[in-house]
Amino acid sequence: MAVMANSIGITVLGCGVVGGGVVNILTEQRELLRSRTGLTFDVLHIVDKNPDVAKRFPSIAFTTDASAAIADPKVQIVVELIGGTGVAGKFVEQALTAGKHVVTANKSLLATRGSEFFSLARKHDASIGFEASCGGGIPIINAILHGLSANRNDAIVGILNGTCNFILSQMTRHGWSYAQALAEAQKAGFAEADPTLDVSGRDTAQKLAILGGLAFNARIAESDIHLEGIDTLQDTDIKLAGELGYVGERVKDKLSLRVHPTLVHHDDVLADVSGSFNAVSLYGHAVGHTLYYGRGAGSMPAASAVVADIVNVGLGVIPLAFKQLQVFPDTAAKAAVLPFEELQSRYYLRLTAKDVPGVLADVTAALGKNGISLSAVLQRESNESKTVPVVITTHLAREGSVRKALAEIDALPTVTPKTVCLRIIDQPKEFSNGG
Amino acid sequence: MAVMANSIGITVLGCGVVGGGVVNILTEQRELLRSRTGLTFDVLHIVDKNPDVAKRFPSIAFTTDASAAIADPKVQIVVELIGGTGVAGKFVEQALTAGKHVVTANKSLLATRGSEFFSLARKHDASIGFEASCGGGIPIINAILHGLSANRNDAIVGILNGTCNFILSQMTRHGWSYAQALAEAQKAGFAEADPTLDVSGRDTAQKLAILGGLAFNARIAESDIHLEGIDTLQDTDIKLAGELGYVGERVKDKLSLRVHPTLVHHDDVLADVSGSFNAVSLYGHAVGHTLYYGRGAGSMPAASAVVADIVNVGLGVIPLAFKQLQVFPDTAAKAAVLPFEELQSRYYLRLTAKDVPGVLADVTAALGKNGISLSAVLQRESNESKTVPVVITTHLAREGSVRKALAEIDALPTVTPKTVCLRIIDQPKEFSNGG
Repeated sequence: MAVMANSIGITVLGCGVVGGGVVNILTEQRELLRSRTGLTFDVLHIVDKNPDVAKRFPSIAFTTDASAAIADPKVQIVVELIGGTGVAGKFVEQALTAGKHVVTANKSLLATRGSEFFSLARKHDASIGFEASCGGGIPIINAILHGLSANRNDAIVGILNGTCNFILSQMTRHGWSYAQALAEAQKAGFAEADPTLDVSGRDTAQKLAILGGLAFNARIAESDIHLEGIDTLQDTDIKLAGELGYVGERVKDKLSLRVHPTLVHHDDVLADVSGSFNAVSLYGHAVGHTLYYGRGAGSMPAASAVVADIVNVGLGVIPLAFKQLQVFPDTAAKAAVLPFEELQSRYYLRLTAKDVPGVLADVTAALGKNGISLSAVLQRESNESKTVPVVITTHLAREGSVRKALAEIDALPTVTPKTVCLRIIDQPKEFSNGG
Repeated sequence: MAVMANSIGITVLGCGVVGGGVVNILTEQRELLRSRTGLTFDVLHIVDKNPDVAKRFPSIAFTTDASAAIADPKVQIVVELIGGTGVAGKFVEQALTAGKHVVTANKSLLATRGSEFFSLARKHDASIGFEASCGGGIPIINAILHGLSANRNDAIVGILNGTCNFILSQMTRHGWSYAQALAEAQKAGFAEADPTLDVSGRDTAQKLAILGGLAFNARIAESDIHLEGIDTLQDTDIKLAGELGYVGERVKDKLSLRVHPTLVHHDDVLADVSGSFNAVSLYGHAVGHTLYYGRGAGSMPAASAVVADIVNVGLGVIPLAFKQLQVFPDTAAKAAVLPFEELQSRYYLRLTAKDVPGVLADVTAALGKNGISLSAVLQRESNESKTVPVVITTHLAREGSVRKALAEIDALPTVTPKTVCLRIIDQPKEFSNGG
């Protein structure tokens, strides 16, 4: 499959929200794509289990027989948009074994069988494009593979789940509870009926496994990543600018990999990422801080990324990169992961004090004993006379030490457990920002 | 030159701030680049008119003879970092004629001779990488060519001059005058002794010509771009969030191309771009709004972009794209430019009223007569009793009509000319941002 003709035959597997967008772009922008690339992109088969799909694209051959549509010798690219790890995996395997290039948005499939599929693609001189698996329409994989290749990437920090970001934006903006915001998100179509995969952070962890793997040239398993969701967050804490971020960070020769709600400084561009927008910050040793921002979900943004991959396969760019770059999970070495207790971070602690006069002395003693120094203390006024919230932020501290101190604090008779603990991200400052 | 060996020979022409950074990355990250790409990148010759440069890189052959260093048959890539349109042009021509790939950061050279050089490269089966010519370390050209290829690009809006952005940030933050902020920028090394190219907007226009050309698949000349600098801005207006932006916009079948100070809504991510950071927003018909942010200048950010181009030439990605994509100035059609008077924009007007009671009636009459409707009027209190500043913002209006109305307003006996006129950019809102 190394040499491409000027006419590229395509089979689209799964023609729902994103698949429909892909077919729309390829048909409506056919002339633009041809004038820009010298190539014509022809959808030869649409495959879906729902025969009603055929009515939406009457001029394109429709079938429910995926295997036949994959096997057609005129098809060079198979676009997998079925989702999940069931039949999608079977068809991707079929396509790669037949030497067809695969373009997919399926992060679950890549998280579970990525290494196997990359290896299979290599064996059959095919390639895999997966830009749409992370960050919707943001061309972040392209940026890591081709835009930032001069850099040793030191950190990747991002907001990569539109559902979480929508919920947190609504909580921040309207002072809603998590439950209220989730209900609103479900009503607006920004959250699934069962939102677990999103709000638990698993979806984000799968994306971090993919992007972190490319950025750090390591094979990252979902289980390498520390996970905390947003479902236990309270609006009190959200008002202080929480986001569900993920962080991958190089700490000496190990990687710190984590998905959790994060306090971001209001000067940080990430603090302005709201609604269904996503953003990824990368820190390279040469380029410093760069950031990529765009819509993380939706039919057309995701279709934009899928079609970009189709075009890059057609141009030969993805096959070249796939063959040459040693950054994919089947060739990269397993990530050396920093144990989570060894993480160094700043922390936000909100505790509920029953007996205010004595509590600060006890709490600061517990922190001090564990080597944690404070950067700020805010004791908030309360209408209820019995308990008072106290917010403490720390300087850089070790996660394990903070957990130990928290256990001691929550055991104090003057404190109502459980103390809320969030991590704070401080991003490097540019000279002129501080000036 | 289509097939690259695993060892890539490089000549670096001009080893100043950026060139030194390039040599540093290629030598210090040699092993990282090899493990990532399977290629070794060897700087075989450093060429500079200053022989002292030789001492900085004692292990690399130094010469003042550029022609010999270009002609070396072991050299496949010539990196031009001399700058300007003099000898740099001569050496680029030599390199391309010899079939060597060229990587350059030289936007002036591309603005003046781009079309000629692209054509020459094509003739000799070479290619040109120019990521570092726009936006420093931001991989924006890579994003347009490979990340967003599915989109009909409808608009490109950006902040692409670190000097201007630094000056405006200082004016905004400290309430300084333009002259004070310029002096500070010169002291801090963010502005040249003669800052004309930057503060007039010409530097930004050259970048818009390059990026707009790629995004809109058109050949854009510097003279196609309407230009207004920042040197006449007053801090009164800057406090309302001015930035030197550029805009390229598709208006039906024509392009509106302009560089001028712009009022940006504080919700817009662009409003947070300060100091020497740059940012580019692109609006694609499928992906919607995406934004790219990073350091627009400096040794290492620019070197990051240059080395990314070197790697992409080595991988064969740039030669492939260069051959296949019909978006470069030598093959794209000349831009059809919208006459500037036909621009539709919102406007900010600040006029100085001598006789307040009568003036608003006269001013609104002049605007109304020319079909311009107001969105807001702010009459500010003044300590001086004789004149009062009045700020007016308009709904969408035609540039030509605004100019006609301004001439009438400035001729009023109640108004002290010259009324300040800035354009406002409203960016599309995401549903959930407005929710």
